[in-house]
Amino acid sequence: MSDRLTSPGTILKRIRDIRPVVHSITNYVVMNSTANALLAMGASPIMAHAPEELEDLSIISHALVINIGTLSSSWIASMHKACRIAKESGKPIILDPVGAGASKLRTQTAQDLVALYTPTVVRGNASEIMSLSPGGGSTRGVDAMHSVDDAVQEARSLAGTLGTVVAATGERDLVTDGARSFFVFGGDPMMGLVTGTGCAASVIVAAFVSMEKDAVAATTAALAFFGLAAQKAIPKSQGPGSFWMHTLDALYSVEPEELDAKARIVAA
Amino acid sequence: MSDRLTSPGTILKRIRDIRPVVHSITNYVVMNSTANALLAMGASPIMAHAPEELEDLSIISHALVINIGTLSSSWIASMHKACRIAKESGKPIILDPVGAGASKLRTQTAQDLVALYTPTVVRGNASEIMSLSPGGGSTRGVDAMHSVDDAVQEARSLAGTLGTVVAATGERDLVTDGARSFFVFGGDPMMGLVTGTGCAASVIVAAFVSMEKDAVAATTAALAFFGLAAQKAIPKSQGPGSFWMHTLDALYSVEPEELDAKARIVAA
Amino acid sequence: MSDRLTSPGTILKRIRDIRPVVHSITNYVVMNSTANALLAMGASPIMAHAPEELEDLSIISHALVINIGTLSSSWIASMHKACRIAKESGKPIILDPVGAGASKLRTQTAQDLVALYTPTVVRGNASEIMSLSPGGGSTRGVDAMHSVDDAVQEARSLAGTLGTVVAATGERDLVTDGARSFFVFGGDPMMGLVTGTGCAASVIVAAFVSMEKDAVAATTAALAFFGLAAQKAIPKSQGPGSFWMHTLDALYSVEPEELDAKARIVAA
Repeated sequence: MSDRLTSPGTILKRIRDIRPVVHSITNYVVMNSTANALLAMGASPIMAHAPEELEDLSIISHALVINIGTLSSSWIASMHKACRIAKESGKPIILDPVGAGASKLRTQTAQDLVALYTPTVVRGNASEIMSLSPGGGSTRGVDAMHSVDDAVQEARSLAGTLGTVVAATGERDLVTDGARSFFVFGGDPMMGLVTGTGCAASVIVAAFVSMEKDAVAATTAALAFFGLAAQKAIPKSQGPGSFWMHTLDALYSVEPEELDAKARIVAA
Repeated sequence: MSDRLTSPGTILKRIRDIRPVVHSITNYVVMNSTANALLAMGASPIMAHAPEELEDLSIISHALVINIGTLSSSWIASMHKACRIAKESGKPIILDPVGAGASKLRTQTAQDLVALYTPTVVRGNASEIMSLSPGGGSTRGVDAMHSVDDAVQEARSLAGTLGTVVAATGERDLVTDGARSFFVFGGDPMMGLVTGTGCAASVIVAAFVSMEKDAVAATTAALAFFGLAAQKAIPKSQGPGSFWMHTLDALYSVEPEELDAKARIVAA
Repeated sequence: MSDRLTSPGTILKRIRDIRPVVHSITNYVVMNSTANALLAMGASPIMAHAPEELEDLSIISHALVINIGTLSSSWIASMHKACRIAKESGKPIILDPVGAGASKLRTQTAQDLVALYTPTVVRGNASEIMSLSPGGGSTRGVDAMHSVDDAVQEARSLAGTLGTVVAATGERDLVTDGARSFFVFGGDPMMGLVTGTGCAASVIVAAFVSMEKDAVAATTAALAFFGLAAQKAIPKSQGPGSFWMHTLDALYSVEPEELDAKARIVAA
């Protein structure tokens, strides 16, 4: 792990002390599971999409997550309003472009949100990330068609151009701001058999980014933390049902010291 | 336990015999988990928000739960319509003012619903309950800022003024109709690390209130039941994931006799 | 098992090889649990309701599931549009008429969808199926009021008239296209204590139907598979919470050979 980055355990400890509030405008499928991931790890979720209350809720939030998994026109309008408010108040925005590349609506919505509000972090699988480039590919639903390796150069370039941290997660995770790039190892293929694990990664990133200014350090730390929790869950699991339950338990029980000892973050 | 109250086990037995239908207009985050809580304990959930079907569904429902956790203007309109229908047909209404105090939209919506329809029971954390008073405080998201103790006087006064039963849940739960007040002991701090445990308490209260005219007896019984289920789950749990699973199992397996033997309901 | 039907294991093997994409426009309550059922068994879920992206998503989908559990007028419009697109491209449509019979809105919506688009399969409990007939009965919420036996004749007649496969699930499941009729044995009464098990059956049917032209064979195979998974979960379970977790694990771990050995499908 680069000694230039704040250690993952240090950031986790801040989360456990402060219990940052993460406001999500997210998809219906993962509202429950991502709220539970945040609570288990020591953060506090708010889910709200009504335009009338976005300003009030921004005041008590430490980060905003925008997840485009089940879009509709009224929710897109709320996403824009929430991003505008977050930008004005300097709150970090984490964008999860679920299914970008699979429909023009998703691709365009994600590209608009990136262009207009420069999220602090964009986290998706390689296909979703690549769809954000002008020459972006197509996506097979929410599954990854491209390897993380394919996406390294594109992610670096995209991050540099847009001024965001890009996290392309998969077998190994790539985190880059264009200048600095890291791989994060961990996790398990079983994560692909539980809905919303990518979305959970995004809200965990949001909690870490809300407690650490260096978004590259925060994002790598968050992914190392989630990957470690998943790895600890695997030996206890008989399938995706028990795996998710044990992952939630591990998000609760992993301590900062264990995270620092086991996180595998290497320069890419 | 006051011998003036119908015993919790007596009401639980009625639920298991009748399987009352609880209609919820609730937030997206907890629809699945609260439906599962109702089914596990022996009741029957309906989730529906379309104004076109509220009258039809009221006919087959034994209670109505209104939960304001993810509001929007069209859902607020449905909540009002459902409350009007429930009032006309004498069905109990249980209001869960999630996040009241955190945004003007939530506070105003909750205050309007209370003023217009006089719910049988209002259940929230201390902060949410206090926000329903004219001098109500502010809330840090869905977390409690005030202790139950702070809220005792205000809850009593609020219940008396409004003519509803008020249940302020927390480390210990307070249930009051203004004249009679009880503390219910049980539960576990782990409940705060699972999303929707408060919302689950509200639907469980609805099932009990639908089977017992004395709403104070029903509400204290429901909270004692849920608290006992949570306490039975704790020794089997390694974190919030397994805790919720074991709580659902305990809602299913706790028998009326055990509930009567272990419920701790004392005059406040 | 009739030797005229493609074996369940053969179809399951295709699913595990191809990982078909099942697009659902479904109710909020079960989005998470049905997505997880599809992923656990080896298929790939998409949830999307925005009219703007239905054509794009149809291209990458192998089947469409319409579930009317939490209707609203805008979602009904999306359901019609999605069905039109699926019909035009020859994709199978699976209709789950949740609560049909319980409200005029649900009954009418289900009858319209059946009449206009002739779904490949309609799966519901006996009450819901019977409500689709002109002389259809009333439903007590999402619970079954009629036995599967009551529904056999009506289901056969309905299937024949409408040209769809009808699956009436309950203690034992009936699958009929009017000409051929089968009972599928398996499952457990505990399934009635977990929300969305019927909805999970529907998405599993969709995955099977997307990989096998004979919709009767595919539907019986899907129900045998789900029933076997549930039966394998029961001995490990202490209640509905652990039951669902173990069912997800079993959807993941049941192999084609075991399914063929244990499926109980008999002519009705």
